[in-house]
Amino acid sequence: MKNYITLSDIENLDDLIKEALELKKIDWALDTGKGKTVGLLFFNPSLRTRLSTEKAGKLLGMEVMTMNAGKDGWALEFEDGAVMNSDKAEHVKEAAGVLSQYCDIIGIRAFPDLIDRDKDEAEIVLNAFRKYATVPVVNLESATGHPLQALTDAITISELKDKKRPKVVLSWAPHPKALPQSVPNSFADIMQKIDVDFVITNPNGYDLNPAITKDVSVIHDQEKALKDADFVYVKNWSSYEHYGKVLSVKKDWTLNQEKLKGTKNAKVMHCLPVRRNVVIADDVLDSENSVVLQQAGNRTFAAQAVLKRLLENSDNSR
Amino acid sequence: MKNYITLSDIENLDDLIKEALELKKIDWALDTGKGKTVGLLFFNPSLRTRLSTEKAGKLLGMEVMTMNAGKDGWALEFEDGAVMNSDKAEHVKEAAGVLSQYCDIIGIRAFPDLIDRDKDEAEIVLNAFRKYATVPVVNLESATGHPLQALTDAITISELKDKKRPKVVLSWAPHPKALPQSVPNSFADIMQKIDVDFVITNPNGYDLNPAITKDVSVIHDQEKALKDADFVYVKNWSSYEHYGKVLSVKKDWTLNQEKLKGTKNAKVMHCLPVRRNVVIADDVLDSENSVVLQQAGNRTFAAQAVLKRLLENSDNSR
Amino acid sequence: MKNYITLSDIENLDDLIKEALELKKIDWALDTGKGKTVGLLFFNPSLRTRLSTEKAGKLLGMEVMTMNAGKDGWALEFEDGAVMNSDKAEHVKEAAGVLSQYCDIIGIRAFPDLIDRDKDEAEIVLNAFRKYATVPVVNLESATGHPLQALTDAITISELKDKKRPKVVLSWAPHPKALPQSVPNSFADIMQKIDVDFVITNPNGYDLNPAITKDVSVIHDQEKALKDADFVYVKNWSSYEHYGKVLSVKKDWTLNQEKLKGTKNAKVMHCLPVRRNVVIADDVLDSENSVVLQQAGNRTFAAQAVLKRLLENSDNSR
Repeated sequence: MKNYITLSDIENLDDLIKEALELKKIDWALDTGKGKTVGLLFFNPSLRTRLSTEKAGKLLGMEVMTMNAGKDGWALEFEDGAVMNSDKAEHVKEAAGVLSQYCDIIGIRAFPDLIDRDKDEAEIVLNAFRKYATVPVVNLESATGHPLQALTDAITISELKDKKRPKVVLSWAPHPKALPQSVPNSFADIMQKIDVDFVITNPNGYDLNPAITKDVSVIHDQEKALKDADFVYVKNWSSYEHYGKVLSVKKDWTLNQEKLKGTKNAKVMHCLPVRRNVVIADDVLDSENSVVLQQAGNRTFAAQAVLKRLLENSDNSR
Repeated sequence: MKNYITLSDIENLDDLIKEALELKKIDWALDTGKGKTVGLLFFNPSLRTRLSTEKAGKLLGMEVMTMNAGKDGWALEFEDGAVMNSDKAEHVKEAAGVLSQYCDIIGIRAFPDLIDRDKDEAEIVLNAFRKYATVPVVNLESATGHPLQALTDAITISELKDKKRPKVVLSWAPHPKALPQSVPNSFADIMQKIDVDFVITNPNGYDLNPAITKDVSVIHDQEKALKDADFVYVKNWSSYEHYGKVLSVKKDWTLNQEKLKGTKNAKVMHCLPVRRNVVIADDVLDSENSVVLQQAGNRTFAAQAVLKRLLENSDNSR
Repeated sequence: MKNYITLSDIENLDDLIKEALELKKIDWALDTGKGKTVGLLFFNPSLRTRLSTEKAGKLLGMEVMTMNAGKDGWALEFEDGAVMNSDKAEHVKEAAGVLSQYCDIIGIRAFPDLIDRDKDEAEIVLNAFRKYATVPVVNLESATGHPLQALTDAITISELKDKKRPKVVLSWAPHPKALPQSVPNSFADIMQKIDVDFVITNPNGYDLNPAITKDVSVIHDQEKALKDADFVYVKNWSSYEHYGKVLSVKKDWTLNQEKLKGTKNAKVMHCLPVRRNVVIADDVLDSENSVVLQQAGNRTFAAQAVLKRLLENSDNSR
């Protein structure tokens, strides 16, 4: 693995999941990262990604340096050839080049604006760091993807499934604000790479990017989709078609115990933070069906497995 | 010790003070916390608590992760059953549950609003973390108490006293802003647990919560109270009776050298930050009487003793 | 070395440069700083200084604690004798005294206001910490100097020069905002301490403080100054004479390839962040002439050499 920008950077997903679950057992592998530094740069808020990746680095024996971009440092320019006589003090060429001097791996979080689809899909921030950094870059959630979350989700399903090929349903949920498609995009992507029966359900107008969902069946009737599910992954996202919009939806899509009745006592997943009684009802989150905390706990081991691969690769290439 | 929420969590105070003073001598005890992580979550500013607790963790060999809640992460909801369709993105149930996956101990700082006494006394933030965290929780100053500061104060008096039972006076001081009662509350509490002759002096209207001060004599004449004092602990707090109010006070309560004359060359303590020439005069802070820096230094060893106990307890309970 | 406030704190510059280049080779020297803590206090934004000094501390085996002053902690009062009944919660006497209890070395970044020259030259923040701290203080860029940057610059020139006495030109550049003179001050200072042919070029009205530039020739014709240069150090600064002002300048002072023609294929340096196509053109920054990233990388080893000296000195003095 040379970078971890999208799931396609993973060479052998099954091996990586196994390794994460091994790392979960041994807890510390301090020699792997000794003398190495990971720098985490946040353009947006973070709780789980920040702490789990910091912890993953430390569990590998690495030094960790975390910065709130913009707030702690300088406003960055991303445009090539810009005449920088306005509010941006530093070009990403230098910022990425300098971070590469201090860090052996760089993590970047940069959310979409949800205004201009082409601009968000260009992944300007993440791609600029990938282009100008001379060390591996890890996607800590970008405009269109969240591959560390998706790897966590695959690990959690592998850990919890009680049959070879469980049925997994990605179920849209309501939310007062317009949210990115990055989590459902990466989840839909990775579910096509492991051995599950995968279905997406969302209201009309909320279909995800067809280039990502490909042949996955998208069912607009939630009840029908949830039938016999072993796992329900609940998540809101704003419209991809009417880009970034929150469309009015007549039916109630909040996941509650009533809706779980048609499932095979499904385990309920969510990447968190979750708005209770809007996205998922208390009666689900506070029940045995919910595995959201175990899922969040696995973030550490997903990050650890990815950082370990990146370190091993850069060792080999010397 | 299972948590460190209030002073009543301490099983044997004398032992804990002794241990802190032992830890002060040896400086590092890196094996105790090896492979363990403490997460510090600040809802309010901090200098001493932040750095001394970070340092205490490192001195024990722990990994330390510090976050400014709200700023770095997500706005939290504390109400049970809330329909989260407004500005709060994450419920404390998940936040505490998730932090418990990444941290072996969680520290929380959450000040009072000083508007609604019942609400502040409910200790909503701290108690929610205690309720939903599955690891020990440490109070880094809450709405009504600051037990790490109080332990530091007891350690400092133990270290500096030159008689078996010194006279200790908690003396109210003026301040331009309404401040919490958390520090004087915890100080009044711990002074009743060690062998001192303890007196409180404050203007009328500034009596602390009688459920905390109990039988301690509260003297409204500062000069009389200070007579023969070995230690004077100076601190402002807003009114408990007229909750959160700054009442007009006619006499000058600022501690200065003139007022120290009646004492037994008393050592002067303050938890810091201190407003010079308002709370304590320069002629005291810059004199040999002041032990505020030594006191601040002991914050490290108080935190170290508490973290060590919590770690030992969780090891035993496995 | 007892502090690192200005370049005059360096006892033997050649030795220090050599040591930094040795540290660059060995990468880790973990025993030197084991059990020691460096605290970094930022009153202003920072990317390179923050991360390189954090990394330098870690490379020496130190614990590192970083704080954004004001934002994470309390607003500080610097005036002696102040009656603190307004917005400042803590006096630097206590802040510096307390940090000295938690840290073995304290780093301070505090920029000038660029309004009142006398006030900026008094270096109120840095000098207050030097005065009241009981541990070594490191200047992380103050109102009038940036000695860690200057040491980096001397290290970089030593590393890259291909003749005994290269010609080094400090060349002023345009900038939309008023910037401090701290970097050019310290650069002009250190260039007079190593074996180079040093020239400064800037427009009329932009001459630096003559107490710093002393006998260095200041040439107001950029083309003439650049002739045969081996190194060009590009940097904007606001006027010292018309203090803090951005004066209108008729000629174009942006460094570009055209202007490099008269040099000996000069290596181009800048402390970063650099505004592209305002301070230096893309055709220089993206060429082989630019050594700005290597220069930024050396920040780590300059900081490491300084921290190591300070640690060694405090060990000896025990």
